[in-house]
Amino acid sequence: MKKFINKVENVENEMIQGLIKAHSDKIRKLECGNVLVRNNKKEGKVAIITGGGSGHEPSFGGYVGTGMLDAAVAGAIYTSPAADIIYEGIKAVSADKGVLMIPMNDTGDIMNFEMAAEMADMDGISTAMVVTNDDVAVDNSLYTVGRRGVAGTVLVHKIAGAMAETGASLEEVKAVAQKAIDNVRTMGVAINPSTIPSAGKPGFELADNEMEVGIGIHGEPGVYRDTLKSADEIADVLLDKILSDIDYSNSEVAVMVNGSGGTPLMELYLINNHVYDALTEKGIKIYKTLVGNYMTSIEQEGFSVTLLKLDEQLKTLLDAPADTIAYKA
Amino acid sequence: MKKFINKVENVENEMIQGLIKAHSDKIRKLECGNVLVRNNKKEGKVAIITGGGSGHEPSFGGYVGTGMLDAAVAGAIYTSPAADIIYEGIKAVSADKGVLMIPMNDTGDIMNFEMAAEMADMDGISTAMVVTNDDVAVDNSLYTVGRRGVAGTVLVHKIAGAMAETGASLEEVKAVAQKAIDNVRTMGVAINPSTIPSAGKPGFELADNEMEVGIGIHGEPGVYRDTLKSADEIADVLLDKILSDIDYSNSEVAVMVNGSGGTPLMELYLINNHVYDALTEKGIKIYKTLVGNYMTSIEQEGFSVTLLKLDEQLKTLLDAPADTIAYKA
Repeated sequence: MKKFINKVENVENEMIQGLIKAHSDKIRKLECGNVLVRNNKKEGKVAIITGGGSGHEPSFGGYVGTGMLDAAVAGAIYTSPAADIIYEGIKAVSADKGVLMIPMNDTGDIMNFEMAAEMADMDGISTAMVVTNDDVAVDNSLYTVGRRGVAGTVLVHKIAGAMAETGASLEEVKAVAQKAIDNVRTMGVAINPSTIPSAGKPGFELADNEMEVGIGIHGEPGVYRDTLKSADEIADVLLDKILSDIDYSNSEVAVMVNGSGGTPLMELYLINNHVYDALTEKGIKIYKTLVGNYMTSIEQEGFSVTLLKLDEQLKTLLDAPADTIAYKA
Repeated sequence: MKKFINKVENVENEMIQGLIKAHSDKIRKLECGNVLVRNNKKEGKVAIITGGGSGHEPSFGGYVGTGMLDAAVAGAIYTSPAADIIYEGIKAVSADKGVLMIPMNDTGDIMNFEMAAEMADMDGISTAMVVTNDDVAVDNSLYTVGRRGVAGTVLVHKIAGAMAETGASLEEVKAVAQKAIDNVRTMGVAINPSTIPSAGKPGFELADNEMEVGIGIHGEPGVYRDTLKSADEIADVLLDKILSDIDYSNSEVAVMVNGSGGTPLMELYLINNHVYDALTEKGIKIYKTLVGNYMTSIEQEGFSVTLLKLDEQLKTLLDAPADTIAYKA
């Protein structure tokens, strides 16, 4: 294992501390644990909270700020945060309009968010929850009943956060977040795995000419292994699966070409060159494109493609101002 | 070589096309070659142009836009762009206040920028040039007389771009760019090399317990090889060299912890945790911190630390608005 770290047991805390030290103008950490909250807490709006294991940076601390998240709760790498820490996060951000929880679909995360909501309920805090599940690679997985939540989650947070800033009610913000979830799909691939520091070895091994297709974001293998193809052919495999899932014809979409952490930006842009052409050829209109490391798996070399089908409301919310560390609009 | 590419000879062009397709609202490409220019060309300001080899994404196309660069000229990977293409870039951005060229110190780049300036001069276009040379690792190198320009270049572009937006003269913008150059220092390290697609093999090889210290950004080995140390110890090696070069005591600084392309954000933040503490302990005040992949070497796993000593003018210019693909302020 070759990493820039100190002691493996300190990786998450040192990372969170380094994030706070870089951006103390925007975010702070609760003393009780790795809960990142925005400095400018705002009344008169629904608070948006998410969380999950670490290892997906800049998800989710990088998206705490105006127009996106009010809090992100960080567990250990690829591990759910505890319910009582999530509860502290809910209490910290709760204002007069309630709290919308938007975790990714993961059995541990969902259970802990639900427990935290029950605790908050006893304090009289109104919560609601929607769960992202954009990964079309699998119907169920080792860690989920139903699809996994992956990179499309970032777009759901952007849209829900923008709606919350308008002063909309908890029901209204929940509804638009669910609309985004219903219209977003992702699929990913990897050519090199990630290594959890405390594990000391990669989650899987691949030969020099192999790739894992339909990969999740927790270092686990994909749906199947194949020989490495050209970037265009790989992008087509992902797009075919996404496009067969919901009807994107004659739609406007947001496209995200997301890197897994170790993939150079050069390759992500090269992939977007083909994704753009392939979608355009099918008559799908690209309204906005995001290319970069939005939802990572530590140093995994891989990428995912996300399509979000847009209507006028979603376009407006996607374009609305956001001032976070890793997402500015 | 394991990469998401198609044909090796098309990597640069497909990457540039993919960048343009993602961000055609902000930038366009000249037909004559890989010159990226901002859409909103502005009269009444000095135009800022840079360029160099590809492989450093988001440098420099990602910094073309309001408040930073007017044009970025991209050569093949780690290869200088030709003089006649730079000249086309100068012509495209030239407005009424002249053109400031800010390449990194590299013998090929400097020669080609100077030739381009001579061609522009024959058209009556006023140009001036300053050269970034922030790398304290070496006094001279294989590709340079004097120090290399590396990640600190991005801060110089930010400051010069902000000054240009004020309507300052070519002399004034050149002066403040030179002030930034005089006050910025960088040093880098790598634990895994990058592979130029057309070469097909890495620029150097390292054992599992080795690192290259004092590395440049063109895939070349560093100043010396050492056994891998802890992140904190490595950061200290880089900081010691930087801090011994100019006097930062009682100063305010901007800090950049820059990833080389394959380094996960988790590690960069973990490194910043110690950089912050080490500088604070020395009485150096951190005014602003940037953590991320600003100046990369394809998929190299490594990082650099940059310190820019600030005065009131540099602080104001660093904070000024910028609306580019990869740098927003």
